Amino acid sequence: MPTTQTIDQFAIDTIRTLSIDAINAANSGHPGLPMGAAPMAYSLWSEHLKHNPGNAKWFNRDRFVLSAGHGSALLYSLLHLFGYQVSIEDLKQFRKLNSRTPGHPEYGHTDGVDATTGPLGQGIAMAVGMAMAEAHLASKFNQDGFPVVDHYTYALVGDGCLMEGISYEAMSMAGHMKLDKLIVLYDSNDISLDGELNLSFSENVQKRAESANWHYLRVEDGNDIAAISNAIAAAKQNKERPTIIEVRTIIGYGSKAAGTNKVHGNPLGKEEAKATKEVYGWPYEEEFTVPSEVRAHFDRLKQQGAAKEEEWNKLFAAYSAKYPSQGKELAAAIAGDVKIETADILTFDTSKSISTRVASGEAINHFVKSVPSIFGGSADLSHSTMTDIKGESTFAVQSYAGRNVYFGVREHAMGAAGNGMALHGGVNPFVSTFFVFSDYLRPSIRLAALQKLPVVYVFTHDSIAVGEDGPTHEPVEHLAALRTIPGLTVIRPSDANETASAWAYALTQKEGPVALILSRQNLPVYEQTKANRDQVANGGYVLTETNGQPDVILIATGSEVSLAVNAKAELEKDNVSVRVVAMPSRELFDRQSEAYKQSVLPDSATKRIAIEAGISLGWDRYAGPGGKVLSIDTFGASGPGGAVMEYFGFSVANVVSLAKELL
Amino acid sequence: MPTTQTIDQFAIDTIRTLSIDAINAANSGHPGLPMGAAPMAYSLWSEHLKHNPGNAKWFNRDRFVLSAGHGSALLYSLLHLFGYQVSIEDLKQFRKLNSRTPGHPEYGHTDGVDATTGPLGQGIAMAVGMAMAEAHLASKFNQDGFPVVDHYTYALVGDGCLMEGISYEAMSMAGHMKLDKLIVLYDSNDISLDGELNLSFSENVQKRAESANWHYLRVEDGNDIAAISNAIAAAKQNKERPTIIEVRTIIGYGSKAAGTNKVHGNPLGKEEAKATKEVYGWPYEEEFTVPSEVRAHFDRLKQQGAAKEEEWNKLFAAYSAKYPSQGKELAAAIAGDVKIETADILTFDTSKSISTRVASGEAINHFVKSVPSIFGGSADLSHSTMTDIKGESTFAVQSYAGRNVYFGVREHAMGAAGNGMALHGGVNPFVSTFFVFSDYLRPSIRLAALQKLPVVYVFTHDSIAVGEDGPTHEPVEHLAALRTIPGLTVIRPSDANETASAWAYALTQKEGPVALILSRQNLPVYEQTKANRDQVANGGYVLTETNGQPDVILIATGSEVSLAVNAKAELEKDNVSVRVVAMPSRELFDRQSEAYKQSVLPDSATKRIAIEAGISLGWDRYAGPGGKVLSIDTFGASGPGGAVMEYFGFSVANVVSLAKELL
Repeated sequence: MPTTQTIDQFAIDTIRTLSIDAINAANSGHPGLPMGAAPMAYSLWSEHLKHNPGNAKWFNRDRFVLSAGHGSALLYSLLHLFGYQVSIEDLKQFRKLNSRTPGHPEYGHTDGVDATTGPLGQGIAMAVGMAMAEAHLASKFNQDGFPVVDHYTYALVGDGCLMEGISYEAMSMAGHMKLDKLIVLYDSNDISLDGELNLSFSENVQKRAESANWHYLRVEDGNDIAAISNAIAAAKQNKERPTIIEVRTIIGYGSKAAGTNKVHGNPLGKEEAKATKEVYGWPYEEEFTVPSEVRAHFDRLKQQGAAKEEEWNKLFAAYSAKYPSQGKELAAAIAGDVKIETADILTFDTSKSISTRVASGEAINHFVKSVPSIFGGSADLSHSTMTDIKGESTFAVQSYAGRNVYFGVREHAMGAAGNGMALHGGVNPFVSTFFVFSDYLRPSIRLAALQKLPVVYVFTHDSIAVGEDGPTHEPVEHLAALRTIPGLTVIRPSDANETASAWAYALTQKEGPVALILSRQNLPVYEQTKANRDQVANGGYVLTETNGQPDVILIATGSEVSLAVNAKAELEKDNVSVRVVAMPSRELFDRQSEAYKQSVLPDSATKRIAIEAGISLGWDRYAGPGGKVLSIDTFGASGPGGAVMEYFGFSVANVVSLAKELL
Repeated sequence: MPTTQTIDQFAIDTIRTLSIDAINAANSGHPGLPMGAAPMAYSLWSEHLKHNPGNAKWFNRDRFVLSAGHGSALLYSLLHLFGYQVSIEDLKQFRKLNSRTPGHPEYGHTDGVDATTGPLGQGIAMAVGMAMAEAHLASKFNQDGFPVVDHYTYALVGDGCLMEGISYEAMSMAGHMKLDKLIVLYDSNDISLDGELNLSFSENVQKRAESANWHYLRVEDGNDIAAISNAIAAAKQNKERPTIIEVRTIIGYGSKAAGTNKVHGNPLGKEEAKATKEVYGWPYEEEFTVPSEVRAHFDRLKQQGAAKEEEWNKLFAAYSAKYPSQGKELAAAIAGDVKIETADILTFDTSKSISTRVASGEAINHFVKSVPSIFGGSADLSHSTMTDIKGESTFAVQSYAGRNVYFGVREHAMGAAGNGMALHGGVNPFVSTFFVFSDYLRPSIRLAALQKLPVVYVFTHDSIAVGEDGPTHEPVEHLAALRTIPGLTVIRPSDANETASAWAYALTQKEGPVALILSRQNLPVYEQTKANRDQVANGGYVLTETNGQPDVILIATGSEVSLAVNAKAELEKDNVSVRVVAMPSRELFDRQSEAYKQSVLPDSATKRIAIEAGISLGWDRYAGPGGKVLSIDTFGASGPGGAVMEYFGFSVANVVSLAKELL
């Protein structure tokens, strides 16, 4: 170790040089952030972050979200040095196919990564969700002397994150909710991809943060780790609001291009790496060097982490002894296992019509009794999406134990917060808005799917039957658009019973996010959906059979199932035998065995009509080459819902006529 | 007129009662906003708004965007009273099927509606785009004594708009750009759908606005039209920054439920309407009454508007006489007609590979010479999406004539601003980012399609070939997802020549928005794409033919076209004859005649492989029942682009093997 350096400085330069070397080896990546932000990351991780590198899943660890995910080399260097399962070899494989060190951090792929990040702004909003989950569980479970849920959530953001709309929504929400254990480090370097930040951004970030009820701190020198550590300590002491610490840094610190956009996303190259290491006073020629003093230093830090978890394990054991039912409930929530027997699925009276959004509300209120970890709410539409849990209070500083979350008109941050809650664990999150506004949170839905997070989306007002609000509020392409996202399961239940079954499926599965697509308008309730309560998980099934071979199969989803049932009745008057197939989820149906699929849609039965009040894309496959699709491939129109449906051909008469054309 | 009332108050109450009656007649709608915000709207429209109800298309009119589009009854009442083509009968048909008065204002459908609004936050961001277009054109065309482009842009927003992330992005952008002719009226009533605003929102809006470099004014009494008018006058005087005027109002003013969320979105009903009219001192029993004094008052205002346009017509004639070339250019820009001959489409050297994003940059720089109205830029990725116009300055207060717009990392506001520019007219807007982030602006793309606006999206880095950045940055579902939007044309050119043709198509069509989907990586350039420059508009065509009947047809888009061409070469070594069909746009191909489609994809040729580095959804239809689809139906992976493509089966060897399986 150079005599002029402290071990801290040497450790920081190790983070920097490992990052430089990894990016050079990949010949791809973003050195600017790791070089500029290494001191703040080191200060946080070495002096404040409560974590155990030996167990990345420790529940009460502090969470760390690298919202500026393009700085992944920084995170991988930290994970390696702190002793997570990221080896030097893994760093050498940075950005290579099937490596542990992909271009952006991926949750579930690399040990110690708390969230998949890269799309800007998502990370800070996921961090807000984590802090919400922590506050909720702490309020619900902690007892005097037993702070079993008690940790901070940290996020490291760049200028890009703060320019994204989602970051404002997330900050506004976190400030409103007074999430004091959320601490954001802002790598403020006056540079964005296009050049100097002042080309496109000239906000007063302090004033902005304060307007949103945040505590703002500033560190003038991003290399001053004492100042950074003091600021983090001050943030931890503030018990009233979240904190953002603006740390002024130099992007690509030490390189010739430092302080410019040139060093943001281009490898330094051999020559420049060498020159930069000289600026650092780095004594090694060999790449990927971790000096032994540095290695020993990090080993000590790792041991401290293990001790902290050990301490917590004891605390949790004592808690469970003193509060056995809470201990059991918390352990179950952490494990995340939810079991619902078919017999326990709510069923509905078939004598009266009920919208699937209202049925969903009843299902939520039913399942919360047996699944206490359900936690969620709506983007200012709880009276329309019917998501309020009766008898529960509002999630707010007065009562973080409240299970009703009012996200405000902030669909995007709501979506990302749902991801953050699921990443945190201990809760089963759901979020809700009008279906047409699923577009507003689509980037977060994608990240839920990519991370395989069990977030439930309650999307109501699901078609042109919305009616009077007109085309701006009538989903047309949204079913098809959500079905494009790999790993997302879309369920559009036919009636109230299927809605309850869909909720049961969503709560018990661990495959990834589930979107429930629900009607505004009332729909009949069928005996068959009650009898077939376990069938929703198959995605599609025979709802009403005919005697003998059907002349025609009507395949429908959601509100169009009752249309199909009514058309069947009409057709049978003319001795046309009809099978109605309810297809609440194409994704789930596609996953079934070929034999099952044939039992529902036999190749021999070619006369089929697929009916959905959405665009036709993708229905060809189910209707088959001999079939037809009844769809709407334009935007909708304003008018009473029934009139609009009729206008676009969703009427018994039209289905009957289409069927007769086929025969 | 009651003797205690002024004509202004009587006019305001007419706006209120017409709105109440229309909503009651529809038994659907949002009375809260019209009743609370009628005074500010009246004050603006009667004292400040420069418009000519006789010609809603007058180019130099002030623009008015009802960002809180659910308050449509307010706008329709204003349009009726000011003499636009909205009759009392139209008001009675409010929210009825095929009426002129749909649930939310629709541009192109109702005379005098400057923008389709309803999805919250979109309106204010479109208004920013309008103000940008105005500033740009004014700077470009105005001459001393000839302010031919000189108007304000007004938006009326509610709390909901200001909670949406897009509104922060838009405000940050407008404040940075110092768009002083943008004036926002904020209907501040402390109520949101879920209840009191403080359930979810507690920002200091003044501080927020000031942090974003806005001028903030406040009117304490929303019924005080003198104070409102003075504030608007003060805003117009501020030549340094955009202004937001927070007007404190009472939602549903005058009704029993005033000041609560109950009056936001529910009709008052007969009884309550009557009681409310009594509170106003309204002397008429009959619904939809416009008192004769009020009618006469508005008729006078209408005449003033006609005179203003007349004055401007003279100014423009004098300008055109003195500055003939500018006059001609501005007139052409206003008309929006762009003609590009096939011969004038840029072509590329076939001897070297070039990415389609670079080709797009060259096409922009080529076409700006003949289409001076091209105006746009990128969301902080201009060095990656290649959208900079060489030799042009930055659009900024120093030079609003600059044609390079740096939107910052604000994809959503950029998308909406593109809509606002197109709505304003006089410019041909394009906006740009990585394709994967098209999700961030999707709600605005939908509104572009719904409004049939000719916005061009330049989406680059279009597939898993992005490589090292990994699945967060690799579009997989995005081609399919964009293709779901009715009226959006998606073009993924095969090479540089097709890219130039796609640009020519995008600039000259008037059908609606066009998304150009472009490669990061270099691609070969073909003679055939040069020879077939006019074929891109057909969506799909035979790129390379075989001798005689093809054994197999390879259908491909974008970068996969060269894969198909290479596979053809390989297959022909084994005497398999192959036709390669380039299919840059499924939407355009679908619009062609059946005969043309048969000439490209004859029913008789059933052995087809559709190849696209995206999800398979929708390709069944083109591959046909006898065909195959080579696609990627999972998320991508991080690694060098070529390796990732190969890993997922996009290799000559795999295409050859699939073809042989078919035969």
